[in-house]
Amino acid sequence: MATSSRLVTSLRRISTPRVAPSFQRFRFRPANQIRWITAASSEPHQPDADGTVKGAPAPAKTIAFTSEKYDVQRDSKYAQLSEDHVKYFQELLGSESAVVDGVSKDATEDIEPFNSDWMRKYRGHTKLVLKPQTKEEVSKILKYCNDNMLAVVPQGGNTGLVGGSVPVFDEIVINLQKMNKIRSFDDVSGVLVADAGVILEVADNFLAEHNAIFPLDLGAKGSCQIGGNVSTNAGGLRLLRYGSLHGNVLGIEAVLPDGRIIEDLSKLRKNNTGYDLKQLFIGGEGTIGIITGVSILCPQRSPAVNVAYFALESYEQVQKAFKEAKGQLSEILSAFELMDGRTQRIVHDVTGKKMPLDGDHPFYVLIETSGSNADHDSEKLQAFLEHVMETEIVSDGVLAQDQTQIQELWSCREGVTECLGHWGGTYKYDLSIPIAEMYQVVNDLRDRLTEAGLLGKEDSPVIDVVGYGHMGDANIHLNIPVRGYDKKIEKLLEPWVFEWVQKRNGSISAEHGLGISKKPFIGYSRTETMLGLMRQIKDTYDPNGIMNPYKYI
Amino acid sequence: MATSSRLVTSLRRISTPRVAPSFQRFRFRPANQIRWITAASSEPHQPDADGTVKGAPAPAKTIAFTSEKYDVQRDSKYAQLSEDHVKYFQELLGSESAVVDGVSKDATEDIEPFNSDWMRKYRGHTKLVLKPQTKEEVSKILKYCNDNMLAVVPQGGNTGLVGGSVPVFDEIVINLQKMNKIRSFDDVSGVLVADAGVILEVADNFLAEHNAIFPLDLGAKGSCQIGGNVSTNAGGLRLLRYGSLHGNVLGIEAVLPDGRIIEDLSKLRKNNTGYDLKQLFIGGEGTIGIITGVSILCPQRSPAVNVAYFALESYEQVQKAFKEAKGQLSEILSAFELMDGRTQRIVHDVTGKKMPLDGDHPFYVLIETSGSNADHDSEKLQAFLEHVMETEIVSDGVLAQDQTQIQELWSCREGVTECLGHWGGTYKYDLSIPIAEMYQVVNDLRDRLTEAGLLGKEDSPVIDVVGYGHMGDANIHLNIPVRGYDKKIEKLLEPWVFEWVQKRNGSISAEHGLGISKKPFIGYSRTETMLGLMRQIKDTYDPNGIMNPYKYI
Repeated sequence: MATSSRLVTSLRRISTPRVAPSFQRFRFRPANQIRWITAASSEPHQPDADGTVKGAPAPAKTIAFTSEKYDVQRDSKYAQLSEDHVKYFQELLGSESAVVDGVSKDATEDIEPFNSDWMRKYRGHTKLVLKPQTKEEVSKILKYCNDNMLAVVPQGGNTGLVGGSVPVFDEIVINLQKMNKIRSFDDVSGVLVADAGVILEVADNFLAEHNAIFPLDLGAKGSCQIGGNVSTNAGGLRLLRYGSLHGNVLGIEAVLPDGRIIEDLSKLRKNNTGYDLKQLFIGGEGTIGIITGVSILCPQRSPAVNVAYFALESYEQVQKAFKEAKGQLSEILSAFELMDGRTQRIVHDVTGKKMPLDGDHPFYVLIETSGSNADHDSEKLQAFLEHVMETEIVSDGVLAQDQTQIQELWSCREGVTECLGHWGGTYKYDLSIPIAEMYQVVNDLRDRLTEAGLLGKEDSPVIDVVGYGHMGDANIHLNIPVRGYDKKIEKLLEPWVFEWVQKRNGSISAEHGLGISKKPFIGYSRTETMLGLMRQIKDTYDPNGIMNPYKYI
Repeated sequence: MATSSRLVTSLRRISTPRVAPSFQRFRFRPANQIRWITAASSEPHQPDADGTVKGAPAPAKTIAFTSEKYDVQRDSKYAQLSEDHVKYFQELLGSESAVVDGVSKDATEDIEPFNSDWMRKYRGHTKLVLKPQTKEEVSKILKYCNDNMLAVVPQGGNTGLVGGSVPVFDEIVINLQKMNKIRSFDDVSGVLVADAGVILEVADNFLAEHNAIFPLDLGAKGSCQIGGNVSTNAGGLRLLRYGSLHGNVLGIEAVLPDGRIIEDLSKLRKNNTGYDLKQLFIGGEGTIGIITGVSILCPQRSPAVNVAYFALESYEQVQKAFKEAKGQLSEILSAFELMDGRTQRIVHDVTGKKMPLDGDHPFYVLIETSGSNADHDSEKLQAFLEHVMETEIVSDGVLAQDQTQIQELWSCREGVTECLGHWGGTYKYDLSIPIAEMYQVVNDLRDRLTEAGLLGKEDSPVIDVVGYGHMGDANIHLNIPVRGYDKKIEKLLEPWVFEWVQKRNGSISAEHGLGISKKPFIGYSRTETMLGLMRQIKDTYDPNGIMNPYKYI
């Protein structure tokens, strides 16, 4: 791991490892140690690979039904599931473990994990879960459902944040967990071909053995599946460096509602022969077909990783630092994460942990570099840090000396979400906003809640308004920790936040997708023309509307 | 520019600049010096910014009509242009220069440049050219055409290689050259927003002033327009490093055939709100709408560039070298270009130029690195070269010491296409093939032509079969220099080449697109299911079929 003996004095603050055990850096965790640390959601509970929730405080049946919470009516065009339907699927899939049948018998306990999500926020009424093993089985299932007007919901690791992979009513769950084979890896081209149900961490560990890296990383990697990642166009921690899945996915294998199989597992970086249809499935959230396989370009794994953490006195300085980092660190910059001072104070207050830097500063930034030569990278990072210190862009900083300190610094960023939940609840928004104005939403909302008398006193219902996130991707997590959920607060938040974002041509869902929770608000980020064109796509490819209904657009 | 004083002895061969004036490296040419050097087409003639051809050996009217060459019939569903139509457009666009009217008067001379391409390969019968200045004008033009069943062909710099931007019959040419403004650049986020008609080189020069780089580069940069680049999903020289336009284009502004305007000039890296429709326009070749604006993520410009050129004894060694380059040069590798020994011998024979390395070797590779620190990059490249020399992956090599030598080495790659035309003609294929088998197509075709008695003797009609191209993108240019075009040869080439590529799941058009020339062969790279889905897209968005007819799918 990267070390450097030539650090500026002021950056040598960390001389001995001070690991707070509750804030380990999970990107380096062993394969069997799974923990949720996605930026916008570090809820403590999580499903394991087959969808069950461990350590949940209450059984799934206590979760409110999505249909009631979102006031949705079942569309009567869909058929009701019968025992005949189940019989067809049992014969088709053969093995008993491939069908969880709650139609001809009571299977509530077995089915509940597939009916709800790990956040305990969404809950459906499904009575049938199917676990196909081949694309042909998926094809036959979908054709049958399409012919019989049976609605379905594709489900991967069920780790989404917007309710996209959980049924609303009695949609049949088509779970991809049994399609979990890595099909091939070419270590010359770096192209991986794998089943959709391969768990992200399994793929990444496999690639590590071949000195390659999956171009996507996120906190849910121990449970989420690559097919789900592609279907939701997951963003995550490596986007700044490796770009989005729209650029990295080379091909897909997918099944359309009418059973037709798209065989497009291209291993080619270039293929200009017609519309790039796979792109519609990337981020299509299972609404026009089910992805059963993915081919993806995987970069070489970087042997050298450096992490620095520093304080800045204004958002203008943060922007300057980002520009300098892009210029000077350029090809080795792999993360530029922003945390405002309030988030760091909360981490300190809640955990009692000593922070890497003394004093209170309005902004903190964590920088990570990943490259092929540790000495070169350290030298670049050091030159960058010297420059930003000398020009007073940065007022103080530390540079990790070893793996332990790297984890320590990352914990200041990754521990934020967990600490925010300390007082009872947190309203969370995952926003893309052009960088220049990105942080302003935090100040404006703080003013708004203060003026309304909901923030500022010792017993105010709102604890604070904070902002942090992937600065490099112009993606901010606007969080409002509160003593409890309260309609009065909610009325001040929505649609105000969405309107604020719309005025700046931002996105109301940067990386989490639409699912059921953002569906009503898509108009804030897309024009009526765009929505019309999207509906045409949906109607063209899924004319019966059996795919993941009540969601998306 | 990069220099290194610590080179291994065997890599010091180039000690003084030896520039062959006819082979300058054009990526560094001044803005007003335009030359065609795309990998698959270095034909000497070119259109300037307004579509006229300079230095053409014969007037455009001697070019064979595409309709005859490809035996296409005019679709009678399209209306014939009348003087009333022209009057409408004249009133709409106002300025005289915006309408080239060959309907109500003879305007052959003015219109011919828009009716044919710079390769003198495609020629249409248009009688009307429109040059709108705003998206609203484009919208009104298309709506009128759609309502009146008038077919159109969108045209950018008209630099395509497959006849996509040239009319076949009397389609109205909608030329984007008057929409040529750079709208904004944010030097924090690196997002450029510009009109579709901005010339690539103008955009890149503008970005250079802001220390950024357009993520696409190609030989036609002095004439091609960024809207056309996006519409054809151009590949080019920077793809290995910066990825494809599917990853870099953040948003588009486009007009649909019915006049609806898509306002999606997103400046956001992340926006997961619905189907990513812009992707259909990237590489859509103007068949579902006209792109009028583009927003695109532009990386920082690298201050350090190094180039090395070396010889290898087998294609296996080339693959090993590529793998090592990816591993050791990793984040700074910006080109890995393959040239077989025959191409280098031809360059030597045709130009009389002394090649950088002595002796005959079966393969040569050109490597370029681009990074933020010249010393670091030189050190990495040197370590890599020492390794590949010591392990005998590479048998000989040189490393450029200055800008002149960089150009000299690039000329060995970029001069290939021009030299291949020396004997009379060249059959050219632009193929994507998985790297392991990529070069085999050259050997197999050579055997085939030799067995048929067309190659191998002093007076054989086929001079040679050679391969070169973008190894890093698995993109090979299979070229067959001949004494003259000959049906006997053609029968041995097609469909054999396409079948060969199909068997390896390759692409018959890596970066050049379909246009009219590849349309008949798309079935070799796409399944019937995919084609069906593509036709559904076309029918959905362009139900009257007025957009760029007779082409694509």
